[in-house]
Amino acid sequence: MKYLHTMIRVRDLDATLKFFCEGLGLREARRMDNAAGKFTLVFLSAPESPEAEIELTHNWGSSEDYGSARNFGHLAFRVDDIYATCAHLQSMGVTINRPPREPWVSMANTGVW
Amino acid sequence: MKYLHTMIRVRDLDATLKFFCEGLGLREARRMDNAAGKFTLVFLSAPESPEAEIELTHNWGSSEDYGSARNFGHLAFRVDDIYATCAHLQSMGVTINRPPREPWVSMANTGVW
Repeated sequence: MKYLHTMIRVRDLDATLKFFCEGLGLREARRMDNAAGKFTLVFLSAPESPEAEIELTHNWGSSEDYGSARNFGHLAFRVDDIYATCAHLQSMGVTINRPPREPWVSMANTGVW
Repeated sequence: MKYLHTMIRVRDLDATLKFFCEGLGLREARRMDNAAGKFTLVFLSAPESPEAEIELTHNWGSSEDYGSARNFGHLAFRVDDIYATCAHLQSMGVTINRPPREPWVSMANTGVW
C-alpha cells in the first residue's frame, strides 16, 4: 500500500499554481484537462518527494462556495530555510498569518513549519 | 523541499485508527500526547511510502463540529486489490458509497480507487 496524493479543490488554478510552484517550489508533474467533465486536474510534487503528490481539482467556471472546515487541517512540507521561504512568499504578496520567529511561541523550532 | 504529511482532525481516534490501520493497512509511525494542550497527534503511513505521512489530530473531549467542506477532496492510496480492500472494509461495517465494479462507470479502471 502506498500514499498517492491529497486532493484539494481550487477556484483559481493560476493563483494556486503561482502559490505552490512559484511560491513554495512544488513542480507540476502532469495535468489532465477533461472537456467533457469541464475540469482540470494538476498533480504537483516537491523535488525531494516526487511520488507524494498534491492533486489540484479545478472545476471550470464553478462559482460554488467550496468553504473550509476544521476536519482538514493542513498540508506540510519541509523546506530548507523557513525564513527565506516566508520572505519569498511575502514578497509575492502572500500574507503569512503566523510568521516564524525566535523564540518560537507555539512549539519547538524544529525547522519545520 | 519535501512532502511531510496531510493533517486531518478527527473526533474519535480509536474509530479513525481502526479504519486507517485495521481497515486500510496504514501503520502508526509515532504518537505524541500533549496533556497541557489536551491533544494527541498520531502519524500514520503506508508500508510502501513510509515517509509520506497522515497526521491525525485529536483534541481531547472536543464536541466542536469539525464539519466538512468541498475544498478538501480526498486522500488517495494505492492498494494491491481494490476489491479485496473494499470487501475487508465492508466486513468491518464500513459503508462503501461507490463500490468498485465492472464496467467502471465514472472513470477508467486503472486499479486505483
